[in-house]
Amino acid sequence: MRRAIELAKKGEGFTSPNPMVGAVIVKDGRIIGEGYHERYGGLHAERNALASVTESPKGAVIYVTLEPCCHYGKQPPCVDAILEAGIARVVTGSDDPNPLVAGKGFKKLIEHGVEVTTHVEKEACDALNPVFFHYIQTGLPYVAMKYAMTMDGKIAAYTGQSKWITGEEARAFVQKLRHRYTGIMAGAGTVLADDPRLTCRIPGARQPVRIICDTRLRIPSDANVVETAKEIPTILATCQADPDRIRPFEEKGCQVLTLPEEDGHVDLRALMRELGKRQIDSILLEGGGTLNWSALKSGIVQKVYCFTAPKLFGGADAGTPVEGRGVASPGEAFPLTHLKVTQVGEDLLIEGEVDTDVYRNC
Amino acid sequence: MRRAIELAKKGEGFTSPNPMVGAVIVKDGRIIGEGYHERYGGLHAERNALASVTESPKGAVIYVTLEPCCHYGKQPPCVDAILEAGIARVVTGSDDPNPLVAGKGFKKLIEHGVEVTTHVEKEACDALNPVFFHYIQTGLPYVAMKYAMTMDGKIAAYTGQSKWITGEEARAFVQKLRHRYTGIMAGAGTVLADDPRLTCRIPGARQPVRIICDTRLRIPSDANVVETAKEIPTILATCQADPDRIRPFEEKGCQVLTLPEEDGHVDLRALMRELGKRQIDSILLEGGGTLNWSALKSGIVQKVYCFTAPKLFGGADAGTPVEGRGVASPGEAFPLTHLKVTQVGEDLLIEGEVDTDVYRNC
Repeated sequence: MRRAIELAKKGEGFTSPNPMVGAVIVKDGRIIGEGYHERYGGLHAERNALASVTESPKGAVIYVTLEPCCHYGKQPPCVDAILEAGIARVVTGSDDPNPLVAGKGFKKLIEHGVEVTTHVEKEACDALNPVFFHYIQTGLPYVAMKYAMTMDGKIAAYTGQSKWITGEEARAFVQKLRHRYTGIMAGAGTVLADDPRLTCRIPGARQPVRIICDTRLRIPSDANVVETAKEIPTILATCQADPDRIRPFEEKGCQVLTLPEEDGHVDLRALMRELGKRQIDSILLEGGGTLNWSALKSGIVQKVYCFTAPKLFGGADAGTPVEGRGVASPGEAFPLTHLKVTQVGEDLLIEGEVDTDVYRNC
Repeated sequence: MRRAIELAKKGEGFTSPNPMVGAVIVKDGRIIGEGYHERYGGLHAERNALASVTESPKGAVIYVTLEPCCHYGKQPPCVDAILEAGIARVVTGSDDPNPLVAGKGFKKLIEHGVEVTTHVEKEACDALNPVFFHYIQTGLPYVAMKYAMTMDGKIAAYTGQSKWITGEEARAFVQKLRHRYTGIMAGAGTVLADDPRLTCRIPGARQPVRIICDTRLRIPSDANVVETAKEIPTILATCQADPDRIRPFEEKGCQVLTLPEEDGHVDLRALMRELGKRQIDSILLEGGGTLNWSALKSGIVQKVYCFTAPKLFGGADAGTPVEGRGVASPGEAFPLTHLKVTQVGEDLLIEGEVDTDVYRNC
């Protein structure tokens, strides 16, 4: 199963909105085939593994990180392929959260005399696809808030200067994250301040869809993200409905979503529903303090990537990662779970999951 | 030497302003004696080890974490005791930074035919006594800035509420730090807001001297730290020179230091010189954002203990660990080195050393 997990990871960034899946076929203690889901629309891991076998898979065991599918999607059901190949035993990690699939594949396999073992290395297999599980179950994108701060909690000096807080390795890591997420979201403030491209600069990488939250449509129509909207999909989320204001952005290739207002800001839950419908299953939120607070408060954030640089800025007026109004007391704080600390070059990356059961109004 | 380091640590909190030192005597591969510097004014580690021997130390090896002294201080020179005991070989970790001692002990030992090996596990031995090395070399206290913040860099909610940011284990750890440092420093703002006792609540622990920076002498004379000043030494550092204003505090047992003003604040370098003269070799700075910035900017801070709680507060108006004016650009940041991350209960403790070579004006 460990090998299957390794194989699954090779699909990282290419399988969305499908999950990463790996499969290994073992016969008489020897690996006779392996495969993974290489890209969205391509063969599933089980079929790739079966296609690779060096001898007959009859009577073999297949290890697969996720319960095999039994319905027709982009591909015919893997359960059928497993039965046709004469596999004797199926060992799986994660259950399929898709209500069209859950448990049905196992049922069919068992009915045909195949031995089934589930939940082997389940935690590691589940950890392959947090995005997939979230998206399938909610229809909403999995949102990860990413920020880089100093060890005294500043995302910029009091002058607004923020280049650079973290070192090269941390910045390279962010490029990898951009590759891994389907969309990047930023606010109008970031576009006005830095005029970023919000692209992934890794050669050959998939470009994430850019989503700009601009309640009043304040960004200029010659901003970098607008000028490059014909090459890289760009969505402007706004409360602005005036067609004359919207037209210049549409002419340059942007998709403009006019949404209801909530608390003086684009209704982010409504935006997530719209993006979910457009098969955007994951978003890297690279906002400033205001957008980050709105996102956190509206309950759309699942994960935090907090890069912490070993330095101090000071500054009562320097920006911090999450601003807005904030909670009134420590008891109302948004808790983070499953903390993970990694050294990335000279910086620390602290990852945590947001406890999204905690819905509340601040 | 590892055993000697372990022994040395037993003196933690009691040896100040002397260093923590451990010693082990080995003969024919067997440990025949061991000891450590137990408390200020007591026997040195070498003498404690020699006093504990189970057989004659003649011809034995002594492992000691710090170069043995050869001058008369509170105790007669250890070098003489080593020679009298007929020790054949001395193995040491740290050199003595005290100019009265450095290298002289080794010289005398070698002249008397004792074999000397230095710098064994030097880094680990040096790490026992950062305070001692700093204090001996500068005459100024070693200052460690301690704060507890959320993962979005807040030390309080926007309402000022800060109880509690970290969990029980982290708070218990702070009590241990208070035991370990000779003084605790806080600002008038903290006293006015929380009226803390700033004591170490570990039973039997040494109470640190309390140092309150109160430029305008704003704290009330019935504050907890003032009311308990007869039991626990309390120093008020102020720019206030009016004897009528100072008297009520002195009557309650506070020691009031009137100091020059710098940047609208007590001159912290002048304060450190005064405290150094009073044998305060180490200070745990538990300030708010304003005092922390003044301390950092004035170059008196050697170390940072940053407790990071896995939660988010948000809040553009919520307090952050280091405030004041702050640096104007990332290039001017105060760098932290020798980062160390520890899990303390549910929280993270990130320790770093301040690069004090970087003196500058912001």
